[in-house]
Amino acid sequence: MAKDKEEKKGGGFQLKVPKGTKDWEGKDMVIRDKIFGTITDVFKRHGAVTIDTPVFELKEILAGKYGEDSKLIYDLADQGGELCSLRYDLTVPFARWLAMNSSVQSIKRYHIAKVYRRDQPAMTKGRMREFYQCDFDIAGTYDPMLPDAEILRITTEIFDALGWNGRYTIKINHRKILDGIFAVCGVPTDKIRTISSAVDKLDKQPWTEVRREMTEDKGLDPAVADKIGEFVNLKGGEDLLAKLQANETLTANESAKKGLEDMALLFNYLNIFNVMDKISFDMSLARGLDYYTGVIYEVITEGSAPASAPDAAPAAQSAQKSSKKKKAGADDDRSDDPSVGVGSVAAGGRYDELVGMFSGKSQIPCVGISFGVERIFSITKARMEAEKTAAAVRLNEIDVFVMAFGGKGFTGLLPERMEVARTLWEAGIKAEFSWKVKPKLPQQFKQAETGGVPFAIILGEDELKDGKVKIKQMGLPEGHPEKDGVLIEKSNMVAEVKKRVDDFNAANDIAEKVGAASVH
Amino acid sequence: MAKDKEEKKGGGFQLKVPKGTKDWEGKDMVIRDKIFGTITDVFKRHGAVTIDTPVFELKEILAGKYGEDSKLIYDLADQGGELCSLRYDLTVPFARWLAMNSSVQSIKRYHIAKVYRRDQPAMTKGRMREFYQCDFDIAGTYDPMLPDAEILRITTEIFDALGWNGRYTIKINHRKILDGIFAVCGVPTDKIRTISSAVDKLDKQPWTEVRREMTEDKGLDPAVADKIGEFVNLKGGEDLLAKLQANETLTANESAKKGLEDMALLFNYLNIFNVMDKISFDMSLARGLDYYTGVIYEVITEGSAPASAPDAAPAAQSAQKSSKKKKAGADDDRSDDPSVGVGSVAAGGRYDELVGMFSGKSQIPCVGISFGVERIFSITKARMEAEKTAAAVRLNEIDVFVMAFGGKGFTGLLPERMEVARTLWEAGIKAEFSWKVKPKLPQQFKQAETGGVPFAIILGEDELKDGKVKIKQMGLPEGHPEKDGVLIEKSNMVAEVKKRVDDFNAANDIAEKVGAASVH
Repeated sequence: MAKDKEEKKGGGFQLKVPKGTKDWEGKDMVIRDKIFGTITDVFKRHGAVTIDTPVFELKEILAGKYGEDSKLIYDLADQGGELCSLRYDLTVPFARWLAMNSSVQSIKRYHIAKVYRRDQPAMTKGRMREFYQCDFDIAGTYDPMLPDAEILRITTEIFDALGWNGRYTIKINHRKILDGIFAVCGVPTDKIRTISSAVDKLDKQPWTEVRREMTEDKGLDPAVADKIGEFVNLKGGEDLLAKLQANETLTANESAKKGLEDMALLFNYLNIFNVMDKISFDMSLARGLDYYTGVIYEVITEGSAPASAPDAAPAAQSAQKSSKKKKAGADDDRSDDPSVGVGSVAAGGRYDELVGMFSGKSQIPCVGISFGVERIFSITKARMEAEKTAAAVRLNEIDVFVMAFGGKGFTGLLPERMEVARTLWEAGIKAEFSWKVKPKLPQQFKQAETGGVPFAIILGEDELKDGKVKIKQMGLPEGHPEKDGVLIEKSNMVAEVKKRVDDFNAANDIAEKVGAASVH
Repeated sequence: MAKDKEEKKGGGFQLKVPKGTKDWEGKDMVIRDKIFGTITDVFKRHGAVTIDTPVFELKEILAGKYGEDSKLIYDLADQGGELCSLRYDLTVPFARWLAMNSSVQSIKRYHIAKVYRRDQPAMTKGRMREFYQCDFDIAGTYDPMLPDAEILRITTEIFDALGWNGRYTIKINHRKILDGIFAVCGVPTDKIRTISSAVDKLDKQPWTEVRREMTEDKGLDPAVADKIGEFVNLKGGEDLLAKLQANETLTANESAKKGLEDMALLFNYLNIFNVMDKISFDMSLARGLDYYTGVIYEVITEGSAPASAPDAAPAAQSAQKSSKKKKAGADDDRSDDPSVGVGSVAAGGRYDELVGMFSGKSQIPCVGISFGVERIFSITKARMEAEKTAAAVRLNEIDVFVMAFGGKGFTGLLPERMEVARTLWEAGIKAEFSWKVKPKLPQQFKQAETGGVPFAIILGEDELKDGKVKIKQMGLPEGHPEKDGVLIEKSNMVAEVKKRVDDFNAANDIAEKVGAASVH
């Protein structure tokens, strides 16, 4: 269809969608909906509810929340009345909602919706001005690390349900540990955030470059930078935690001590939840956003991470295997969804102080994760295409095409086809028939095949007189005993169709196709 | 929660959503999603696909499509680059998409999404600036009246699935019949559209007032108006069609003749589709929009139609039974969704010439319907509240709450609760547990009850030693043999839970609750 998409002059104006936006249609739409459905099912399994906020907010609600990126906010024209802006993410509207609803002291909420950024679009890289975000957040005061552990469990359930098992890694770290490390190494307090940002680039720059930025651009004492280097290149699991816990200089720092305690508790819970084998405790993970206050995490998968520099080993080898070598410039590797971070498919952490920005009431601690659903879609689609499962995705869900044939004097059997279709619809079966009074049999087969419909009910005048119809599975190989279909009693048609359709769909679940793309 | 919703000053600015918008949350969200799901299922049963277009379009795409109402279009601010506007409906983006994709010559598409109108909001009447529309359209060239008949069949499947069977009526008419009537009665060609608009008000104004508008405001000859009156107050079914077909003056008019032929064919098809008993052939139905070219229809239900004037009898008595008397002013009865017309819950018709407005290519004939989903939601919710089924709607979908109890020295059994929850999640069962290390039993029960969770798995140290857990259905009456729960083998827990949860959910389907509101 791509070739039809050139911008056309029609009716005297340009026929196109606005720059950085797109129409979702066809198989992309089917695959995307399936991914959203899979994710939503997991959220619901854990008791989450959804909230649907307006696509625009009062301008002042968004003001001052995004720093330099505020220039990317879309404003509505001033047509009289309130000044509004399109939402830039789903976090600020959620915090606004929490602040407005003071009776809500705890909630697990998910939200899958479009957000808007007036950025320079780069369609080929998937950087859009209108794109989907998918956020899950837990707000409320609970015993330490329990909601945090459940979010990571949910994350594994989602990627496993998408069929990514064995092909993704959850990088994890803790802001308090990082802050402790910076303090112990001797970073001046006022430089902690900027040094943290530099560390966060270790997933796409070698340590030598990050060190140069720290010392030359940010004026850090080279000795301090070298001390930091000893920590932030560390990766592992419970072994690394034990190593850090044994470091008395580090544990003498209150912040680090608290962070390490959190981490020990979290790893304990993650073991019970069978999540630890997906975890890489990665001291280079710092996350760009300022508002995190506790555990932080990022999910990487094959093809999602930019090529790593030689001395910044990947968190998990498998996740790096096929990633293509490309220029590791910040702009070039820019995520389509900056909220999930460069090269990741999901990211988040604990932010205990954000809601207070909107609220006179006391803080509500929060922990959340944002799934980069557009990137997850792109990776899934690419894998399906590589593994030839995309072709099997049906454009619509019709299971039965009702058709008719006859010899000389054939009337088309339209009333009979309509009545059979009605009977199938009444039984909840997805069915259609040709909207022609006298369709030719090959035309009807072609229509069914184009739609990928798996079954045909074929009506013939003689068979109908005997109270029979024929059911035929499409595309059976030559020589199959049912290749030409099977005659069944019309009175038993619904049961016969249901049995076959259920069996067929169980064996050809599109969820498996979406998932299968990455399993073997 | 309403009382928490006052606009608050927080962080120095007003905490509110923009005028005419709202947050969807809580039970409203659950009921709304259920309604959308019910509608979508029917669309898919008939082979429809969905297309997701951007929330804003180039300004020039919308320009000149909405007449006077163009002033209600939301523009984006000019921040450099293209000038864009928020979509005003889903029809123009669909026509734009068809025109852009010239390889698509036929499609059945649905689209449920928000649209934007900078109108004076009236929240109490449900008139919003951001609201949902739900459109279903069939584009393509087919044999006459077959897609039209299927759209009406889909409409009945949707309202029946919502539990409205017996409580709604589909008013139907044909633009060509109307045009023929106006011609035979002697309406000058240049007055046909304005006289048609006057006729369309018969659902909320008496004939005397409509006649006055025709003659006094629009300068129609009173004798012509009286002739029109003889036709447009006619209502019926196949009897009315026979009566009109017998009117030789009318059938001598080419337009009327063609319209009556269409209608005869349509009624034939609707009989096969078991739809005729929902149909009221209503000569007063004219529909406001200019672009209809064939059959037009509107669905009314109890509570959706404004009080009728004394001499404009309701199309179906049942649909009028409980409608409240209110001032029948055009503004007062203004629909929350003007696309479905005043007092209706769905409306549409055939429009064979709209796509050509966007396209150099040949016309694509279309027929469609728009469901007033916000109004359907309001009516459903009001019915559920009246019939006390709303209380039974669960806020989330959790089926099992995992809890623990113990005597002196009780540890909280947190690892055991986590492990049981994990086992349930792995089996796809929706479960949660208290995020407290040592929760008290009453607290755990309260949390489960607040969420309306139907089952509890209760862990006790002694029972666990015996390899057993207790399963308890919440809210069983005093004296019920299983009131205190049943001990089951832990190794068999998943099967035992699944059986009970499936039985419970089959008996308490929320779809039935949403539907039950009108069946009883």
